[in-house]
Amino acid sequence: MRVGMLTSGGDCQSLNATMRGVAKTLYNQRKDVEIIGFIEGYRGLIYEDYRIMKSKDFSGILTNGGTILGTSRQPFKLMRVPDENGLDKVEAMKNTYKKLKLDCLVVLGGNGSQKTTNLLRQEGLNVIGLPKTIDNDLWGTDVTFGFQSAINLATQTIDCIHTTAASHGRVFIVEIMGHKVGWLTLHAGIAGGADIILVPEIPYDINKVAAAVNKRAKEGKRFSIIAVAEGAISKEQAALSKKEYKKYIATRQYPSISYEIGAKISELTGQEVRVAVPGHMQRGGSPCPYDRVLSTRLGAAAGKMILDGEFGYLVGMKNNHIAKIPLADVAGKLKMIQPDDEMVQEAKLMGISFGD
Amino acid sequence: MRVGMLTSGGDCQSLNATMRGVAKTLYNQRKDVEIIGFIEGYRGLIYEDYRIMKSKDFSGILTNGGTILGTSRQPFKLMRVPDENGLDKVEAMKNTYKKLKLDCLVVLGGNGSQKTTNLLRQEGLNVIGLPKTIDNDLWGTDVTFGFQSAINLATQTIDCIHTTAASHGRVFIVEIMGHKVGWLTLHAGIAGGADIILVPEIPYDINKVAAAVNKRAKEGKRFSIIAVAEGAISKEQAALSKKEYKKYIATRQYPSISYEIGAKISELTGQEVRVAVPGHMQRGGSPCPYDRVLSTRLGAAAGKMILDGEFGYLVGMKNNHIAKIPLADVAGKLKMIQPDDEMVQEAKLMGISFGD
Amino acid sequence: MRVGMLTSGGDCQSLNATMRGVAKTLYNQRKDVEIIGFIEGYRGLIYEDYRIMKSKDFSGILTNGGTILGTSRQPFKLMRVPDENGLDKVEAMKNTYKKLKLDCLVVLGGNGSQKTTNLLRQEGLNVIGLPKTIDNDLWGTDVTFGFQSAINLATQTIDCIHTTAASHGRVFIVEIMGHKVGWLTLHAGIAGGADIILVPEIPYDINKVAAAVNKRAKEGKRFSIIAVAEGAISKEQAALSKKEYKKYIATRQYPSISYEIGAKISELTGQEVRVAVPGHMQRGGSPCPYDRVLSTRLGAAAGKMILDGEFGYLVGMKNNHIAKIPLADVAGKLKMIQPDDEMVQEAKLMGISFGD
Amino acid sequence: MRVGMLTSGGDCQSLNATMRGVAKTLYNQRKDVEIIGFIEGYRGLIYEDYRIMKSKDFSGILTNGGTILGTSRQPFKLMRVPDENGLDKVEAMKNTYKKLKLDCLVVLGGNGSQKTTNLLRQEGLNVIGLPKTIDNDLWGTDVTFGFQSAINLATQTIDCIHTTAASHGRVFIVEIMGHKVGWLTLHAGIAGGADIILVPEIPYDINKVAAAVNKRAKEGKRFSIIAVAEGAISKEQAALSKKEYKKYIATRQYPSISYEIGAKISELTGQEVRVAVPGHMQRGGSPCPYDRVLSTRLGAAAGKMILDGEFGYLVGMKNNHIAKIPLADVAGKLKMIQPDDEMVQEAKLMGISFGD
Repeated sequence: MRVGMLTSGGDCQSLNATMRGVAKTLYNQRKDVEIIGFIEGYRGLIYEDYRIMKSKDFSGILTNGGTILGTSRQPFKLMRVPDENGLDKVEAMKNTYKKLKLDCLVVLGGNGSQKTTNLLRQEGLNVIGLPKTIDNDLWGTDVTFGFQSAINLATQTIDCIHTTAASHGRVFIVEIMGHKVGWLTLHAGIAGGADIILVPEIPYDINKVAAAVNKRAKEGKRFSIIAVAEGAISKEQAALSKKEYKKYIATRQYPSISYEIGAKISELTGQEVRVAVPGHMQRGGSPCPYDRVLSTRLGAAAGKMILDGEFGYLVGMKNNHIAKIPLADVAGKLKMIQPDDEMVQEAKLMGISFGD
Repeated sequence: MRVGMLTSGGDCQSLNATMRGVAKTLYNQRKDVEIIGFIEGYRGLIYEDYRIMKSKDFSGILTNGGTILGTSRQPFKLMRVPDENGLDKVEAMKNTYKKLKLDCLVVLGGNGSQKTTNLLRQEGLNVIGLPKTIDNDLWGTDVTFGFQSAINLATQTIDCIHTTAASHGRVFIVEIMGHKVGWLTLHAGIAGGADIILVPEIPYDINKVAAAVNKRAKEGKRFSIIAVAEGAISKEQAALSKKEYKKYIATRQYPSISYEIGAKISELTGQEVRVAVPGHMQRGGSPCPYDRVLSTRLGAAAGKMILDGEFGYLVGMKNNHIAKIPLADVAGKLKMIQPDDEMVQEAKLMGISFGD
Repeated sequence: MRVGMLTSGGDCQSLNATMRGVAKTLYNQRKDVEIIGFIEGYRGLIYEDYRIMKSKDFSGILTNGGTILGTSRQPFKLMRVPDENGLDKVEAMKNTYKKLKLDCLVVLGGNGSQKTTNLLRQEGLNVIGLPKTIDNDLWGTDVTFGFQSAINLATQTIDCIHTTAASHGRVFIVEIMGHKVGWLTLHAGIAGGADIILVPEIPYDINKVAAAVNKRAKEGKRFSIIAVAEGAISKEQAALSKKEYKKYIATRQYPSISYEIGAKISELTGQEVRVAVPGHMQRGGSPCPYDRVLSTRLGAAAGKMILDGEFGYLVGMKNNHIAKIPLADVAGKLKMIQPDDEMVQEAKLMGISFGD
Repeated sequence: MRVGMLTSGGDCQSLNATMRGVAKTLYNQRKDVEIIGFIEGYRGLIYEDYRIMKSKDFSGILTNGGTILGTSRQPFKLMRVPDENGLDKVEAMKNTYKKLKLDCLVVLGGNGSQKTTNLLRQEGLNVIGLPKTIDNDLWGTDVTFGFQSAINLATQTIDCIHTTAASHGRVFIVEIMGHKVGWLTLHAGIAGGADIILVPEIPYDINKVAAAVNKRAKEGKRFSIIAVAEGAISKEQAALSKKEYKKYIATRQYPSISYEIGAKISELTGQEVRVAVPGHMQRGGSPCPYDRVLSTRLGAAAGKMILDGEFGYLVGMKNNHIAKIPLADVAGKLKMIQPDDEMVQEAKLMGISFGD
């Protein structure tokens, strides 16, 4: 039995732990297993760049961040476009799969990557997807690996900012990863005790944000913490056409939305405002125990499915149980915060403002 | 509106965060709220030891471990037994409740404490329970606060032991909290990459444990990590009558089961064995972001229920949603690992031994 | 005995631990001590904003970040300039000191703040300085509190970036606090395994930086980590007059030097470059054990000096012993990295480039 | 140039970082270097068990705990005793050294291991020692690697115990590693805010310890934290002859001194006392940034000395500078806490009791 494996898209904390789960299950259940690791995601599959993995390659990697296979971004929309040498990428991937006599290809990837996994499924390959993303935006699974580790790092940043904000009596904006969805900002914001949380799914009114800061000042609270998702958007911006919004982004005088919000809040409240942008560190470092357990479970379940010949699924979690979600259902959908989300409602009860 | 609050039983990491969630919700929703904090759990309720809490008492405590109210163990089975001065404790609690004109009593407690909460419910008081325990053994809720923080600390201990075990080529036993249930050991064991996991619900055969160690040695792995719950039990011990088991415990020549297992493994395998007992530190320190989010959500939901006049429930989580579990259903039941537990099966697929 | 205390300038991690050390020593040695805490640094001293501290105010604050007294920046060069109401600030501080019948004023502050402490000494007040700064740039002491905690946070950022850089095969620039001195960048850079370290004291040649990146690429190392101090400066910039340099900073098209370096490295090497700016979080959060020990020692030594009537000193560490450095010697001097610094030489031996 | 390397004795956190420092320096300075890694300390040198290390073996290990070479304890006093097959170990080590044509042997080890290093020096080998120990008890160097990382873990344990002790109003004893010296307990005790610190160098009077607990209780402090070194000793025990003390240890009814102290304190004060024994985890896990910097510096300095042909030294730190301490001076001496130690005096000023 020969199983191909690759990690695709932006990296996150628990990729190695997940691959270890798959590998340990396969090696433990069958003697005749060979795992082929493709280098740097789909690039390795397209260009036959791979190495044959041994059992010991998966030892001692449970706690290691990053991915031992490397990764790269191979946009789905370019998959059908030939490369600079005229190579048909989809055919190339199919050829590699056949040439190496793979019984299955396991893809650890996020939303975009799983679209390609589904494409390969449609092309007749045996594929299994595993939900990698700090954004937790994969449709069909309650949770993705990397998410909790990223929450921990983003929350730690807010914790650190908290003491300096309180000491100086400042308004602090912490920009948290998430261009299209706000799960990471929502969780880290609540965990870090943010006073205001701005996410892409809930466009904000800058005056309401300023009012929330002023309300705290009036109550004698000298500082405020605002957790802002990278993709936070004002009501005015949300009302723009796609073209107009792109133009706005292109001509914006601030490096990111946080700085724009910061400038306006400073103007509207008269308070000193600072911005912190932890950035890529949110997807790095060692996976937290929660993610290690999740990854191990998902990996073991994927291993079992390979042994049972069940293909075409994303392996996720539904209601604390392993769930097999047809890749056809997953591809192209995003799991976003709904306006009536329970957690948002609870946060509002406590007085946290979403600026809406 | 007057709301009583107390923390009961062994402390854990997210008690303050939970109380903050309740308090912030109440203060934010109504102007006329007064919160009475009872000192050291039911002791404070019995003996009228309390202080009136202000809004600012709940500020800045989100990340603080322990409990600002203090706690004590007041065994359920002694509740109906008068104290040394002949005081009827149940009547005393009811009197305090009435005297202070409470509209509701909120109890943060584990299995034993919630039995008393249910007793007070039966006596006609308005009560709400919140699921505090690092053991995650409360019936009716998928998860309890304190659990994930304890997993993190227990896992960190295994991580640290891992490097020293590997360097010295030793067998290491890490004893993890949990007298009756093994959830904490199961999660930390998997997160820490333990090779063998022994929990109370799955009695072990010492020869199978030794065989698992020997198998690793034969594969060239110079060390093994065994995660053992405090309440781990051998098949022979599990077959004893209650009386016989108590006698065994009383006359055991080892400080705990881990040392007994260690001595036997050393004898059966000829390998050097060491035991680590992190102990109470597992329930201490700052709550992790997961627990802070959980506690904030449970607290806000409890606050809402108080405002809505919904009493008699434990507030927990079911399938990622807030759940109201009738206290009558919760009291006296333990949520234990079932032999066919999904996670146990996944771990076995990967070659982790449970000694059974 | 009445002792005034204030925290001045940018906050850091171990301010509370230091004040606790002073206070515990005073309360433990004399019954008649009263401590006056000035609110928000010299502002509180100028405007008589203070509170009388009790022994218990200093309990439980050893591990808390920030400062319980608040802080503010009161630039030394404005001290002799009257405020908007014509108030003479220096006279106001002296008046407060006298009015409150202080026996001594303890100032926790960095380079700028200690200049003011020295000014008050010259004006006849009994003062003691304590070396607060994450920059470790105070002249006369080997180490300052906050420094090691900031190293830990900056290093953690590099650690997290390391895994994502390695997975993606990217060049990553991590911008570390330090406008004038590079100690924090030097230590965190070495601790984080940075390949290139750029500090203000050693102007860089961008071509040598690019060459170091290319050398690694040639050796098959797909990624490089560059630790850059906020105040890193190129040889060309270092050759500018003060006026020209200010103009360059004012008209620079990048938010900070890191982005400028990033753009040039990308151009010169053809590699993908990303920038991470952890920012203010480096001065926040709980102090590390090293800083807690240092702060406790410095605080206790300061307490002893107050009891002994020894004033006019900065309390620091010299060769692992407490040192009393005359404030007159400290004021206005910076402790900078010397070109022949032992640590720089050791780093170079190992192949770390400083771009010089 | 051929350089042998081994790690000896109990492992600690920064062994890999130190070896990396040596190796990177050698590889960077000379093309013709070959490093021989002996497996499991002196055992590998005696029995010719080694592997030839490549440059990439030292990549990515800066943050890894344990030792990539493995370690074992080879007591100095048995070095002159032939093994079970009659092999003369010292001759065997010399033979291996000559056979492999080594130019130098680098030994990472603590007090006992460096005695053997000195023996090999006396036998004419070129040796360099590096100070490995969490105990910080190596004579001649201010600090050893592993020490600060162990402080961090021991302090974290005290931090966690602190919240649970405070919540329950209990006396907690935390047993910290250190049989002969108390540096680790002293530093972690102060960093963790312990109220009482008991170290081997300062025999305690149990009545004074109990008095310190009672004093706190009288001041309304419901809990006390006692940091106890493994080798803490009472005045009575200190007065015993070596033989009598050994007999006492052999017949002691408690697993360790902490339990004995706990039982007596409970008896003398009437308070509930608990004991926590973090154990071996104190020497495990990833090295902290402080140790990584220290290890890198010491390693680079050792590399330089090899290149310069300077042998027979332990490479340590004196007054923040690299120091070359003749191994002849180091062997057999322990650096212990002196009764008039500055830090002990400072702690006493603040009211911390040493039970003396």
